[in-house]
Amino acid sequence: MDEPAFPARSDLRFNPSNRLRRSPLFDRLESAGCSAWSIYNRTLIPQWFEGLEADCAHLRRAVQLWDVGGERVVEVAGPDALRLVQMATPRYLGELAPDRCAYIPAVDAEGGMLNDPVLTRIGENRYWLALADGDLGQFLKGLAAGARLNVRVFEPDVWILAIQGPRSGELAGRIWSDAPALGFFRWMHVPLLGRRMVLARTGFSATRGYELYVEGSADLPEIWDRLMEAGQDLDVRAGCPNLIERIEAGLLSYGNDMTVEHTPFEAGLGAFCQLDFVTEAVCHAALVNRQEPVRQIRPVEVSGEKVPPVATLWDVTDREGRPVGKLSSAAWSPERKTNVGIAMIAREHWAPGTRLVVHAPDGERAMSVRERFWSRS
Amino acid sequence: MDEPAFPARSDLRFNPSNRLRRSPLFDRLESAGCSAWSIYNRTLIPQWFEGLEADCAHLRRAVQLWDVGGERVVEVAGPDALRLVQMATPRYLGELAPDRCAYIPAVDAEGGMLNDPVLTRIGENRYWLALADGDLGQFLKGLAAGARLNVRVFEPDVWILAIQGPRSGELAGRIWSDAPALGFFRWMHVPLLGRRMVLARTGFSATRGYELYVEGSADLPEIWDRLMEAGQDLDVRAGCPNLIERIEAGLLSYGNDMTVEHTPFEAGLGAFCQLDFVTEAVCHAALVNRQEPVRQIRPVEVSGEKVPPVATLWDVTDREGRPVGKLSSAAWSPERKTNVGIAMIAREHWAPGTRLVVHAPDGERAMSVRERFWSRS
Repeated sequence: MDEPAFPARSDLRFNPSNRLRRSPLFDRLESAGCSAWSIYNRTLIPQWFEGLEADCAHLRRAVQLWDVGGERVVEVAGPDALRLVQMATPRYLGELAPDRCAYIPAVDAEGGMLNDPVLTRIGENRYWLALADGDLGQFLKGLAAGARLNVRVFEPDVWILAIQGPRSGELAGRIWSDAPALGFFRWMHVPLLGRRMVLARTGFSATRGYELYVEGSADLPEIWDRLMEAGQDLDVRAGCPNLIERIEAGLLSYGNDMTVEHTPFEAGLGAFCQLDFVTEAVCHAALVNRQEPVRQIRPVEVSGEKVPPVATLWDVTDREGRPVGKLSSAAWSPERKTNVGIAMIAREHWAPGTRLVVHAPDGERAMSVRERFWSRS
Repeated sequence: MDEPAFPARSDLRFNPSNRLRRSPLFDRLESAGCSAWSIYNRTLIPQWFEGLEADCAHLRRAVQLWDVGGERVVEVAGPDALRLVQMATPRYLGELAPDRCAYIPAVDAEGGMLNDPVLTRIGENRYWLALADGDLGQFLKGLAAGARLNVRVFEPDVWILAIQGPRSGELAGRIWSDAPALGFFRWMHVPLLGRRMVLARTGFSATRGYELYVEGSADLPEIWDRLMEAGQDLDVRAGCPNLIERIEAGLLSYGNDMTVEHTPFEAGLGAFCQLDFVTEAVCHAALVNRQEPVRQIRPVEVSGEKVPPVATLWDVTDREGRPVGKLSSAAWSPERKTNVGIAMIAREHWAPGTRLVVHAPDGERAMSVRERFWSRS
């Protein structure tokens, strides 16, 4: 346990409820030593096991199994399926190959981010969206009903298991010989327990990784055990998306780093917007005039000792105390020997090297803007 | 504390996050002794204070202040506002008086329940929906964009404080002299701290009660303190929606007792469906043929000692072990000297007095179907 105790007021007694899901792997996660939980899409998800720092170091040297049951899957099926998904995103999907997955910002008619799922073209006129925290299925249902499209939108009983870390290829290869050759953001059907599953080269880490989409929950514990057994000599462990690793990789967390208040350009996702090709997207008109944002996501370094948990946005000011942004994520990085963070910063202040001040709950700290996220540099 | 300890595996360490909201009243709730929390619309909400049973008894004899910040408010504004809301519900809204609130099932194009908000007609072409757990705002945004309606859908910075219990009229009357005369499901503007607020005769209890809609969060603690001071001799306390009271009153919890898998008729909400008058509702075609449900919500009594918390649906069978339904909510009622519950039961078995079996985690129990919910009888 390398985590500091949260303030007593944050150490809350949590009342389980039928309204909130426990994944079929809940017992496995507890046995594996999950130490803290959160709620994501009304599903209990692990936050860390040994501790954020120990989990991060292990993720970067070995391989982990993640129960990402919080990434609920929405299926869009029918003749108008592609049309519906294209209405919901500024990313051009017209040339999506049959074996491709795509990270897509989902954006409303005012240009606000609604979610940032991974889209998988699972069949002819059939798509799966693996959601960040938020009911994007409701938006898609509304769009489909409002535009009278011939399509069904529903949540299939699909659970996602991630295999992440540098040894994930070797682990996957022991079960599916063609897995190591699977290209980044490609997917294929694979057999397991006599059934056909979907294996994708995706995942919420910058290490190599896979996500296995399993239909039905009954077999999940057995699949978990099989993967654990297959990777025993690879030091496979239970894990989960890691705060330190995702910050260094620049992987944004919807609801933390960006919300409906932000356009995809503000979120730094301009590369996923092809406005010239997506006039049917409901965000098109709103985004056309907002391509030059006046604030944007930036990697930042926060000075001083290990930061406390970021439980609300922290104000960022210039050195004269004028508000210039908000910090949304931060964690101590043992590898970088500093606190790494993600902040939304006003244009006048986002140049690399700009020195700012962040107002953390335990006091002011110097903060500087970086040019790139760490794992990308 | 009259609550039994949950099984150790349910007593989870909860990691706060910027993705999840704490209400501006969090400190007040902690000071008042909130003992257990849940997450509702990504907001931390209290589950009980002294204990479910003690809280219930107090609610029924005095008055409580509830921070129901989990009931997020969605605003629909613009020339097509009424048209949009009517597309989302089978309840006929054409004759909604300006000072009326309305409980409306929100239903998708396949007839599935999406939410059950209270709608308030807050102005000409301007509506507030106080949501149960779920992003109905996304459905409304999708509908509006898909049907190209002239309307805005957004989440205003509005927080709801409830005043519930038999003495709530007296408490409200001390601050607003015309509050005691406010009719059930009516609303009016009231002044407080020099500002205009919305006070409605609504609330998630069968006791008399009000909900105060406060714009902006800065004044909430002061409003809380004012109400607490005004009701000191009425034994006003902090509280929250109470499991025992809501079950006895037949107040359904979206996500617990009904989900997108259920039609409003299955949820026993047929009285809120006027299909002859709402052909524009997107659920119309799907519901027309589903008005005679083959399963429906029923009040049930569960025999034996106090039931454990219902953290997943419990199977209900007939006495030969054949599946006939699911129990979704249950709690020990000190007043009724039995466990009161809510279950979805197949038609052949829902007649009052039918004896069934519920499969609780601690063993089988006899269960019988009641004719009416308790507080209604």
